[in-house]
Amino acid sequence: MSKSQLPLMIGIGTRIRKSPYYESNLKYGVTGFTVYNKMYLPTAFSGPEKEYESLINDVTFGDFAAERQIEINGKDAYDFVRYITPRNLEKCEIGYCKYIILTDMDGGIINDACLLRLEENKFWISPGDGDVILWLQGIAINSGMDVSIHEPDVSPLQISGPKSGKLIRKLFDGEHDDLGYYKARKTQLQNIPMVIARTGWSGELSYELYLQDRKLGNDLFELVYDAAQEFNGRVIAPNTIRTIEGGLLSYGSDFGREHNPYTIGFGRLVDVDQETDFIGKQALKKIKKDGVKEKLIGLEIEGDPLPKAPENFWPVNYDGNKIGRLSRAYFSPRVKKNIGLAILDIEFCEEGTVVLLESPYGDITSKVVSLPWFNADKNTYLD
Amino acid sequence: MSKSQLPLMIGIGTRIRKSPYYESNLKYGVTGFTVYNKMYLPTAFSGPEKEYESLINDVTFGDFAAERQIEINGKDAYDFVRYITPRNLEKCEIGYCKYIILTDMDGGIINDACLLRLEENKFWISPGDGDVILWLQGIAINSGMDVSIHEPDVSPLQISGPKSGKLIRKLFDGEHDDLGYYKARKTQLQNIPMVIARTGWSGELSYELYLQDRKLGNDLFELVYDAAQEFNGRVIAPNTIRTIEGGLLSYGSDFGREHNPYTIGFGRLVDVDQETDFIGKQALKKIKKDGVKEKLIGLEIEGDPLPKAPENFWPVNYDGNKIGRLSRAYFSPRVKKNIGLAILDIEFCEEGTVVLLESPYGDITSKVVSLPWFNADKNTYLD
Repeated sequence: MSKSQLPLMIGIGTRIRKSPYYESNLKYGVTGFTVYNKMYLPTAFSGPEKEYESLINDVTFGDFAAERQIEINGKDAYDFVRYITPRNLEKCEIGYCKYIILTDMDGGIINDACLLRLEENKFWISPGDGDVILWLQGIAINSGMDVSIHEPDVSPLQISGPKSGKLIRKLFDGEHDDLGYYKARKTQLQNIPMVIARTGWSGELSYELYLQDRKLGNDLFELVYDAAQEFNGRVIAPNTIRTIEGGLLSYGSDFGREHNPYTIGFGRLVDVDQETDFIGKQALKKIKKDGVKEKLIGLEIEGDPLPKAPENFWPVNYDGNKIGRLSRAYFSPRVKKNIGLAILDIEFCEEGTVVLLESPYGDITSKVVSLPWFNADKNTYLD
Repeated sequence: MSKSQLPLMIGIGTRIRKSPYYESNLKYGVTGFTVYNKMYLPTAFSGPEKEYESLINDVTFGDFAAERQIEINGKDAYDFVRYITPRNLEKCEIGYCKYIILTDMDGGIINDACLLRLEENKFWISPGDGDVILWLQGIAINSGMDVSIHEPDVSPLQISGPKSGKLIRKLFDGEHDDLGYYKARKTQLQNIPMVIARTGWSGELSYELYLQDRKLGNDLFELVYDAAQEFNGRVIAPNTIRTIEGGLLSYGSDFGREHNPYTIGFGRLVDVDQETDFIGKQALKKIKKDGVKEKLIGLEIEGDPLPKAPENFWPVNYDGNKIGRLSRAYFSPRVKKNIGLAILDIEFCEEGTVVLLESPYGDITSKVVSLPWFNADKNTYLD
């Protein structure tokens, strides 16, 4: 018998960084943290279900500072950015954001990231969990390119949900009503410096306020909190239910270094035919030609709502053989089923294939579906 | 008022890795985890004070799998290892372990690590928290050196304390009685493959069993658990009290990228006069010549035992001015005082200097002392 009973505590110490919104998290009732990019990241306030309801109906906001930025500067910054990703960035103008994949020499995924082009030769990259800055700085050393790479003082506060456009209008007095999808610009709010972008990891219409002065985090949080009351605003953590519904992936969980962009459905982010050379080009050319052996798909899972998210990867079986693994799953109130993300051997990835999920609660019949269940609504509802 | 009351929970999910000893941790009463190298690392079982008593008097053991290894292989592996550290490794023979610092182009510290030379051109490096593997792989890309770098299936189980030599004798039937300090060799225990080394992060005589098959983690744990009963063995987490007493530093807490090896007292690990070129050589040469502006020292702290370890860096003041920060502190039963580690401006680092520690419990008078309070006893007590 196990002596340890959940819940397990998290030790708060100096080795793991606290976000500029840390005090706000405590003030507004955070119940737990995970660690992301060596920073405490909230996991829940009022609970995933309540937070989900606010996210799809009203407006939510929260600490996304663990989305650490990497700033790439210097004469060759644009060339360097082209070199580290398979995405064709020819048309990435100043003020544009692009979702990119970073690959290694074998085409394996170092991380996924949001890229912001702030100036001709100044970029921010915000990858998932993992010291991508060490990867980039290592590459730079013998690259012969003139770049400087560091972590700037930038800490995103994310605002999401159908009423987020209205909240931004109120906060900024209409100044950013015209901000397009995946566009970014410099701004400020009562002298708090920041970049505002229509990006985010939520599955709903989202904005991110990239705070540029860590001392002002809790001030910014209060401003957003106050303005959001009119719209039923709620403080939330990254929401598992909505991100699974939206097919939004989490690096290190849903996919990792052992996968390539084609496996996880991101072939559109790879251009092996562009003239520009990039890390992994030859490997990805070959993978594209040969085809993939496994693929990321959605699963609709029978039975009662799962009591909690899986703590481990659950094996997926077919005819008694393991054919893949599920990484995240939760009950979706809209699908009215448990839904999850899995990577399966390619021959079992056809929609409608019935597989057996090996869970701690026994085997559960599940059906392969295509992703996502619900796309984000890009309407800002300002008219 | 803050809505959140400690303790805060840790979410257990698939993004953060579980060690091969995870089930053993639950079985033997782990009460909490931190996250280290994207893996759950136990923070306590019976509590730091009890664990400390066993560590300095008897024998202790525990899950150090979060000490992930990086394997460097290939024709140029030795040259590559020479290139990434300022330590002169001319005399690092096969079977030797060396404590090394990895530096960047500015002499800043990427991480500290234990290096094992397993073969002529096969090394393991176990750094502290941080994806050093991405740094090394990034450097390798354009280095022109023939190396291959990956994370092998290796997960250390640490055995520490004055009776650890006797426990190793019992487990291996005397086979490793002659294993010298900071030496390593391949071995096995009931067909469980591993490397055994006289290394560790404990402050006491230590051995590490570098398990080489993750499926056998809990089996190995049981073998050690059973054999340790005769010596009053106890399962423990990394022990804050003993590591502070020993002046053993923790990357990301006691020091980081903003520091150089001279600041933290590791000038002996830097040879700027060697012929071999290494990353940061020019910068470190200049720092050595100019001298450092701040230094890591010990503090003896007046007053009652601290109720818990600091959650934040505590400012250190002198005459009303901030002169540095304390990173870790705890009550030492042997020193009979609170003791801690701090980095201070150089002019306040002389032994005996009295400074004021700004803590959540008020200002506390503290005295600068040299490190460590207690060195590890290297006697194996086998004769």
